[in-house]
Amino acid sequence: MKHYDVIIIGGGPSGIIAGVTGKKQNSDKSFLMIKEEAKGLVPCGIPYVFHDLDDVSKNAMGPQPFVDAGGEVLVDTVGTVDLKAKTVTTITGNEFSYTKLIFATGSIPTIPTFIKGYDLKGVEYVKKSYNYIEQLKTRTDAAKNIIVIGAGFIGVEIAEQLAKYKEKCVSLVEMEKHCLYRAFSQDFAAKADTEVKAAGVHLYTETKVEEIVGKDGKVAGVRLSNGKTLDADIVISSVGYKPNTELAKKSGLELNSHGAIRVDNYQRTDTKDVYAVGDCSATRGFITGRADNIMLASTATAEARVLGYNLFCIKVLRNFTGTLSVFSTEINHKAFASAGAIEQAAEEADIKYVVGKFADVDRHPATIADTYPLEVKLIANPENGEIIGGELYGGKGVGEMINIIALAIQKAITVYEFVSFQFGTHPLLTTAPTKYVLVKAAEMAIAQINNCKKQSK
Amino acid sequence: MKHYDVIIIGGGPSGIIAGVTGKKQNSDKSFLMIKEEAKGLVPCGIPYVFHDLDDVSKNAMGPQPFVDAGGEVLVDTVGTVDLKAKTVTTITGNEFSYTKLIFATGSIPTIPTFIKGYDLKGVEYVKKSYNYIEQLKTRTDAAKNIIVIGAGFIGVEIAEQLAKYKEKCVSLVEMEKHCLYRAFSQDFAAKADTEVKAAGVHLYTETKVEEIVGKDGKVAGVRLSNGKTLDADIVISSVGYKPNTELAKKSGLELNSHGAIRVDNYQRTDTKDVYAVGDCSATRGFITGRADNIMLASTATAEARVLGYNLFCIKVLRNFTGTLSVFSTEINHKAFASAGAIEQAAEEADIKYVVGKFADVDRHPATIADTYPLEVKLIANPENGEIIGGELYGGKGVGEMINIIALAIQKAITVYEFVSFQFGTHPLLTTAPTKYVLVKAAEMAIAQINNCKKQSK
Repeated sequence: MKHYDVIIIGGGPSGIIAGVTGKKQNSDKSFLMIKEEAKGLVPCGIPYVFHDLDDVSKNAMGPQPFVDAGGEVLVDTVGTVDLKAKTVTTITGNEFSYTKLIFATGSIPTIPTFIKGYDLKGVEYVKKSYNYIEQLKTRTDAAKNIIVIGAGFIGVEIAEQLAKYKEKCVSLVEMEKHCLYRAFSQDFAAKADTEVKAAGVHLYTETKVEEIVGKDGKVAGVRLSNGKTLDADIVISSVGYKPNTELAKKSGLELNSHGAIRVDNYQRTDTKDVYAVGDCSATRGFITGRADNIMLASTATAEARVLGYNLFCIKVLRNFTGTLSVFSTEINHKAFASAGAIEQAAEEADIKYVVGKFADVDRHPATIADTYPLEVKLIANPENGEIIGGELYGGKGVGEMINIIALAIQKAITVYEFVSFQFGTHPLLTTAPTKYVLVKAAEMAIAQINNCKKQSK
Repeated sequence: MKHYDVIIIGGGPSGIIAGVTGKKQNSDKSFLMIKEEAKGLVPCGIPYVFHDLDDVSKNAMGPQPFVDAGGEVLVDTVGTVDLKAKTVTTITGNEFSYTKLIFATGSIPTIPTFIKGYDLKGVEYVKKSYNYIEQLKTRTDAAKNIIVIGAGFIGVEIAEQLAKYKEKCVSLVEMEKHCLYRAFSQDFAAKADTEVKAAGVHLYTETKVEEIVGKDGKVAGVRLSNGKTLDADIVISSVGYKPNTELAKKSGLELNSHGAIRVDNYQRTDTKDVYAVGDCSATRGFITGRADNIMLASTATAEARVLGYNLFCIKVLRNFTGTLSVFSTEINHKAFASAGAIEQAAEEADIKYVVGKFADVDRHPATIADTYPLEVKLIANPENGEIIGGELYGGKGVGEMINIIALAIQKAITVYEFVSFQFGTHPLLTTAPTKYVLVKAAEMAIAQINNCKKQSK
């Protein structure tokens, strides 16, 4: 039986980054990655396969950086793990022993068993599988009527992309009042609705799918709670993802209430020398410390770097104990981003907050060409002004601007500090120095805090 | 004699923001702003008047927000200030007494008296005066051969804008090895040279102007240190700015070695109830604490907010005691930005440093449309990994990305923290999560630090 110092199960972003970082830090150790498919995908690039990239091969992501660093890759599926014997056996009969084992098994789409007809032919999912997405692309190319269920990021992005084919009729159905309702407060989410519709998607919010209607065992339409029945050649279900932890559970690792593998701040499971990282591992909310189910390649790779550096001994401390959700997307050429606690999340978790809002254009003076409207919300703790969340809407600059807010949350920076914070500005690149939107939103938050104080006198 | 609680001399960004913020915080106090011209300009927008905006009126910035907040404005020029009597007299004979006085008199172009012919007709400056720039615009419109002396930000931006008129011959002359040499290290500055040339500007670096050649008392050409003489209808000198502190000096306020008014962290001069803010006030380097001469609207407005909040009593603490230079610009559709200590500045100040570099494209996967190359440098302290500077080159996202680095410097964040920092990423908006450029540059800096440690063993 061949022995490896480190075996990684899974070859997505967290498996690759844990492998690359770990191998670079420990060049004398042997690393094996076992992954199910030879080719991999950039997870967040999947929606763009359907139009902008137009070819699955353009969204390929492989373990080459890991191989370059000296790691070995085996394309196979792990069948069993023996945590006591410290061995791994694949379904093709390969057997290995390990010193350290990393679960990086990712997540899989939630199957909407609660919808009648979910098992019909033509009900598809957004699986993070190269081969599957390649087939799905062929099927959507051939379809005219496409219905996407669930208006989270993946659902919205795929619907927006498919609607770029003018001959297709694309509908998006969402139970909640707005698209992206987990990531944006009501007024920002309403803007997302507007952009989704402007992109040519038929959007049905506050609407349930009562039944996926079949004909000859194949999808024919979708019956909605508003009484309408929509024709469908294909239904794409994007109602969420769950941790892919069947193997971990079978092996005896402890899972949390979300079905994710329990880990400490250094991705260590309760079993010595066994780690979990990425979507399959448990996350805790940044503010509340509660079990959360954040699944993002960005946070997964942050965890993976921490794991890689610290695999054989803790060298680089993890400075942020909770997982901070930082979301961004672009719909119909408008960018949306959020980080940390948004209003409804704060309310749900009984967190007192104030909101500082400001709107401007993203260049200055406003007479300059190619400006976008830009809106910002800063969510802050009224006791000490700490920034706990933020939302942005505007042009492409929003993609990096949200990371200023993300850094502020992670370092417990206050709105009082933002007021004297020295930002760079330029006419062609940012808002004006006299009203840089993050500073102005901080000022608005301070005014709100002072109002709160007056009222409580 | 009319009395005001607060008199502000000057109506540029720092005067306006100090006035607006101060008045909002103290609605019961009377505020008067005395400014020399009725109309004002967005300072950093001036270069774009010459082409992209094409009209000075599109770059106007007035004190309206201050008036809206309840402040009064007088268009006049202050002739004398009596600090003992606490009075201000204008050249038209208006006299006022004050409780608090704010100097926000800005900066004026340095006159290159060291160049023969500097006083010829046709030698122009980039003055922050609406009327002057309006006339200069008319003159450049009529000119064919234009020579810009000094390739700092203003010189580079004006040359790039003027070169957009294909019928004009625009030359830019710089003594240093590269353009923007104060803000960028050698390799980044060399890229700036490339873009300046690609924009159609005739660039002469490592070249001195020996003489501005005249004919009938008017500019006719420029004789360079390389022996060449260039024809010129107009010469624009942009060799720097100096604090506009003649009045302050005459009044008896203490100036520093740069000619700027000495102030404390709350913009208070040595004379009680007298303040100075913006370009006319002294700044100290963020890392060294030494007298510096940073003149930026962004840092000026940050100071002005601190002053405005704290004019009658210190309420909002200034959290960053030094002035951090955060620069950004766009040349030929490529963005350049820097913050804090760059390599040559660190060397000049005897600061030990390592550089973490990384390059990628600014979207992901790299196959997606409209990507820009993106390069980053992080300058860090090898002892504890604190980030002390950074440089960026790429697409428009660079304008906000530099503010992540700026925040990191101001909060003494380390490259070790950046490794586990949770950034948001999206295919259409940012680099990939697996190799987010700031995280990768931090990793490279850590590798450099480890090399240093090995070598010093």
